[in-house]
Amino acid sequence: MPQKPAKRPPPCPPPRAGEGREGAPSGRKTRGAARDDNTVITALELPGAELTPAMQAYFDKCTEKLGFIPNVLKAYAFDMPKLEAFVAMYNDLMLAPSGLSKLEREMIAVAVSSRNRCYYCLVAHGAAVRSLADDPVLGELMVMNYRAARLDRRQRAMLDFAVKLTAKPWEIEEVDRNALREAGFTDRDIWDIAAVASFFNMSNRIASASAMRPNSAYHGQKRE
Amino acid sequence: MPQKPAKRPPPCPPPRAGEGREGAPSGRKTRGAARDDNTVITALELPGAELTPAMQAYFDKCTEKLGFIPNVLKAYAFDMPKLEAFVAMYNDLMLAPSGLSKLEREMIAVAVSSRNRCYYCLVAHGAAVRSLADDPVLGELMVMNYRAARLDRRQRAMLDFAVKLTAKPWEIEEVDRNALREAGFTDRDIWDIAAVASFFNMSNRIASASAMRPNSAYHGQKRE
Amino acid sequence: MPQKPAKRPPPCPPPRAGEGREGAPSGRKTRGAARDDNTVITALELPGAELTPAMQAYFDKCTEKLGFIPNVLKAYAFDMPKLEAFVAMYNDLMLAPSGLSKLEREMIAVAVSSRNRCYYCLVAHGAAVRSLADDPVLGELMVMNYRAARLDRRQRAMLDFAVKLTAKPWEIEEVDRNALREAGFTDRDIWDIAAVASFFNMSNRIASASAMRPNSAYHGQKRE
Amino acid sequence: MPQKPAKRPPPCPPPRAGEGREGAPSGRKTRGAARDDNTVITALELPGAELTPAMQAYFDKCTEKLGFIPNVLKAYAFDMPKLEAFVAMYNDLMLAPSGLSKLEREMIAVAVSSRNRCYYCLVAHGAAVRSLADDPVLGELMVMNYRAARLDRRQRAMLDFAVKLTAKPWEIEEVDRNALREAGFTDRDIWDIAAVASFFNMSNRIASASAMRPNSAYHGQKRE
Amino acid sequence: MPQKPAKRPPPCPPPRAGEGREGAPSGRKTRGAARDDNTVITALELPGAELTPAMQAYFDKCTEKLGFIPNVLKAYAFDMPKLEAFVAMYNDLMLAPSGLSKLEREMIAVAVSSRNRCYYCLVAHGAAVRSLADDPVLGELMVMNYRAARLDRRQRAMLDFAVKLTAKPWEIEEVDRNALREAGFTDRDIWDIAAVASFFNMSNRIASASAMRPNSAYHGQKRE
Amino acid sequence: MPQKPAKRPPPCPPPRAGEGREGAPSGRKTRGAARDDNTVITALELPGAELTPAMQAYFDKCTEKLGFIPNVLKAYAFDMPKLEAFVAMYNDLMLAPSGLSKLEREMIAVAVSSRNRCYYCLVAHGAAVRSLADDPVLGELMVMNYRAARLDRRQRAMLDFAVKLTAKPWEIEEVDRNALREAGFTDRDIWDIAAVASFFNMSNRIASASAMRPNSAYHGQKRE
Repeated sequence: MPQKPAKRPPPCPPPRAGEGREGAPSGRKTRGAARDDNTVITALELPGAELTPAMQAYFDKCTEKLGFIPNVLKAYAFDMPKLEAFVAMYNDLMLAPSGLSKLEREMIAVAVSSRNRCYYCLVAHGAAVRSLADDPVLGELMVMNYRAARLDRRQRAMLDFAVKLTAKPWEIEEVDRNALREAGFTDRDIWDIAAVASFFNMSNRIASASAMRPNSAYHGQKRE
Repeated sequence: MPQKPAKRPPPCPPPRAGEGREGAPSGRKTRGAARDDNTVITALELPGAELTPAMQAYFDKCTEKLGFIPNVLKAYAFDMPKLEAFVAMYNDLMLAPSGLSKLEREMIAVAVSSRNRCYYCLVAHGAAVRSLADDPVLGELMVMNYRAARLDRRQRAMLDFAVKLTAKPWEIEEVDRNALREAGFTDRDIWDIAAVASFFNMSNRIASASAMRPNSAYHGQKRE
Repeated sequence: MPQKPAKRPPPCPPPRAGEGREGAPSGRKTRGAARDDNTVITALELPGAELTPAMQAYFDKCTEKLGFIPNVLKAYAFDMPKLEAFVAMYNDLMLAPSGLSKLEREMIAVAVSSRNRCYYCLVAHGAAVRSLADDPVLGELMVMNYRAARLDRRQRAMLDFAVKLTAKPWEIEEVDRNALREAGFTDRDIWDIAAVASFFNMSNRIASASAMRPNSAYHGQKRE
Repeated sequence: MPQKPAKRPPPCPPPRAGEGREGAPSGRKTRGAARDDNTVITALELPGAELTPAMQAYFDKCTEKLGFIPNVLKAYAFDMPKLEAFVAMYNDLMLAPSGLSKLEREMIAVAVSSRNRCYYCLVAHGAAVRSLADDPVLGELMVMNYRAARLDRRQRAMLDFAVKLTAKPWEIEEVDRNALREAGFTDRDIWDIAAVASFFNMSNRIASASAMRPNSAYHGQKRE
Repeated sequence: MPQKPAKRPPPCPPPRAGEGREGAPSGRKTRGAARDDNTVITALELPGAELTPAMQAYFDKCTEKLGFIPNVLKAYAFDMPKLEAFVAMYNDLMLAPSGLSKLEREMIAVAVSSRNRCYYCLVAHGAAVRSLADDPVLGELMVMNYRAARLDRRQRAMLDFAVKLTAKPWEIEEVDRNALREAGFTDRDIWDIAAVASFFNMSNRIASASAMRPNSAYHGQKRE
Repeated sequence: MPQKPAKRPPPCPPPRAGEGREGAPSGRKTRGAARDDNTVITALELPGAELTPAMQAYFDKCTEKLGFIPNVLKAYAFDMPKLEAFVAMYNDLMLAPSGLSKLEREMIAVAVSSRNRCYYCLVAHGAAVRSLADDPVLGELMVMNYRAARLDRRQRAMLDFAVKLTAKPWEIEEVDRNALREAGFTDRDIWDIAAVASFFNMSNRIASASAMRPNSAYHGQKRE
């Protein structure tokens, strides 16, 4: 029974400073071809299952803290074991203690998603970078081309590794790990960089395969 | 507490017909530059954590059924929440009920790992294909070039989708999903194809980032 | 003397509805590694030349209409003939009468710049798409992955051609032109699609070669 | 009125030593599938506009100096502002004073066009390299693989930058600019290298998008 | 008459230690979609020609030493000059004296075939690596990702050159040859590395173009 | 003794109409960085071996018919078995009876060499196409971008197959062979197309690996 719950911070997507109050955009007029349709989350017809009590509590917490349920969770909600496994892994990777800050993990998420051109993840995690960094520009740089950002050596090495691992995993070798060590990362940090980059290589593909649409609320977050 | 265990088949890597008895290769002489070193699982120094009771039971079951603990599990065993999350997701994807047979899921695993040239996954899951198919050649075809296999339309469409999703996830569109529907897959099957392919895009990268070495026992499995 | 001015709308970057008033962001606090530094426009030290009267008038008009001088113009302002040639070509392509709407031309600009991952052009022309479409989401879709947008056949064919021309110009053939004709475009429209896509293949590279930084004002434009 | 003409050398395509006399190939027999058809310049039906006096003078000068009108000019001649903008930019980039010799600018043109496999530009500018260098082999090397030429460090650095900017503009960074500086180029030279390479990334695509055919006269120029 | 036979070791595919005795797999049951069909060697219908006495003797020797005729020879046997030219070149490259061991030549063959994903060559020459190295794992490493093998500097340099020559021959320059010289190779060795890598770039394509199927006997060779 | 010579047309590189008389370029002045140095054929120091009588006769015939010895032959002349094997295979492929004309085989050679950007082969075989076609333009089209040539369906299908086999041999499948059959090719023709394309994938790499320089005489051949 490996799925025995570990004791850890309440599972929840990254809280974003000062955004819980605004809630889902209610009165926004949708527009033509590109509108986000919050009632159709993916291109796959998968009837929702009944939420387990744990997942119901989790969804309630999301609504309370974010003002909405991230669409990725709704997309997984057709099958509770899949939803629970996704949530457990996501929360461990992105929120549990690590030598990487939460912002750094989100930066990896967006740089990887940019390489994979994943619309869902770029919208949702681009907003996370803007919020966690309190910098509307850094999120854009991660979305568009992380090489154009003026990063310090540590963060640049981190993203170079993550993006090479995304683009050409077969060419990662000891020299790449050593570049991280020389930038100050421990072996445990290297695992975490790799694990976050790898997780988003999974999530990007789930989202692209199912044409997952992000919640509209992300677009306007932390733009000033 | 989303990690609440779901009721389902005992978590365990794919059992392989008739191979539980042989155990790990004991007397095999290792050789020069290419030998598998079972004492060094990855290039990262990550001291093992104490196994939780659930994970201890799981490892015991692996030893009993396979004759060894798959190295990927030992690699994750430095941190119990990470190990548990990986095991939960793996077992759900590869062993839970699905419109895809276990062999088909392993075929996807190997075709994706071939695109990503992941040594660990090709060895471990190539053996799984050989065993589940009772066909030493099918595993080689998945490792080398799935297009060379004489597959039926269903399996060919399944692998074409999985490999395109691996190589160019940003180009997956409705036409690709429709090709699967026309080959007889339901929307739930499409999710499962995507989820398995996506999971191995994650695992391939964890394995490549850490230079994970497969157990030697896989190499000789089901070769005749 | 081929540079004789043609009679046409006053040369100016795309006016954006309702944004002339706000002016350049004055009191915005800049932040850490990713801040836009408006005093260093590119990585090349090229002392500004004296503006010709025509260019001075053009810059004045930009300030009046946009509240700022687009950095690309400042970057070219080390040499008047280069600045004038750039402005003449830009204004003809993006503002002169055409079978393509101004929004469509900006959509091409952004889809091409996304393929080339050009930070400057994605920021500046992403804002233009958001403003011209009065749709904060369409700009993001063009930046991230135009294939994820729910476009009509005409616009999809237009962007498919522009992006193929960007990625593999050597594979453009009559069949590609015919796809545009079948989507309702005239031969003149095809020239315009090609010309805008080609122009941004030039501009993207000038911007990337010189590490051109966009004006900060673009980031917040038309986000709600 | 930014299009005010600058004072500069008379606008004209690169003059080629000793070739003005021969004129267009008059009696050449055309052959089967591959013949250049000088009456069909592109695959797009775009009726020619009336030349402005400036453009008429320019065409006359081309005929006088080259013996023919380059087909790219005829292709643009359906619209005078487009033709004038193209001519102004072309002449500034390729003929105005610069730290790069005219030959070097043509070498960039051909190396970039080789990466983009642009038939029109390879024929026209390959002839220019042969003529300006008085070396029938150097043009072939630029067309086929500039890395096979035995170039000095300066020219090799110049072409490496131009071709990387063509192939992967998103990966150009300070280290690339510094490689040019170390090879003796000023920041102004770097702009010019970038501008010529970028211009041909535009022209290559216009030519490929329209299936532009080069004048037959280029083929035999400076072959001995 | 250049085809005059040179004096050299009897032409024959690589002998593999201790495998001559087993003969072709006679009673093996074939299975479903992926079975090797030894009666249909390629997808092309090319009626066999009468073997010349030299080729008959060669085939007899193969049967005697290997227990079967490699399918590539049967595929070429529709035309004696083609068969003879192939055999002469193959035997010279793979069996004649060289600074490269026979194992090293087979390692190149497999690393190149892996890059080209050639099913026939990976099966046949993967078996050769396993046999010549007396190491069932080394063959798998060459098939899957040679970078994952723990090779000494010499062999790593050799394979890096061979694989770069396969993937991007246009980028091979003096620096690449010097890397081989620094790893201890002579200019003659460099020729041999290049010649073997180049030969398999030919053979991979002949095999892929004709859908050549390997003999089943290879699969089980030297797996323990 | 498989190398027993077959009866066939005297082995010799493709004769080119009307060019035997001119001989090697004797008085040509060499120029700067790009000159062809006929005394240094490759970047590898490989002392020439004594020619066998057969090879001596072959070289004599080349001198008589072409006016020079093609440098590729001199490059191989350090080892007689390698030279003889190369000559035997080359002459069989390019000169023996086939459903493909000699021109078609040279067109394949150049289109493949263009994809691989092989300077030696583009120069030598580009000249062959110009001569055999009596068309100075067709050779340029094959060198620069065969898709720009106005070919009939048969030749286009032939080159599409050859270039796909060069670029992505792992994706060649029955549908590709059927496209050739539908264009009128027999299975034997398909073998020949594949064999010529494959041979130049070998030769391109030998030439690139050794920095082989073509004879200067090729450049001026059949330019009018």
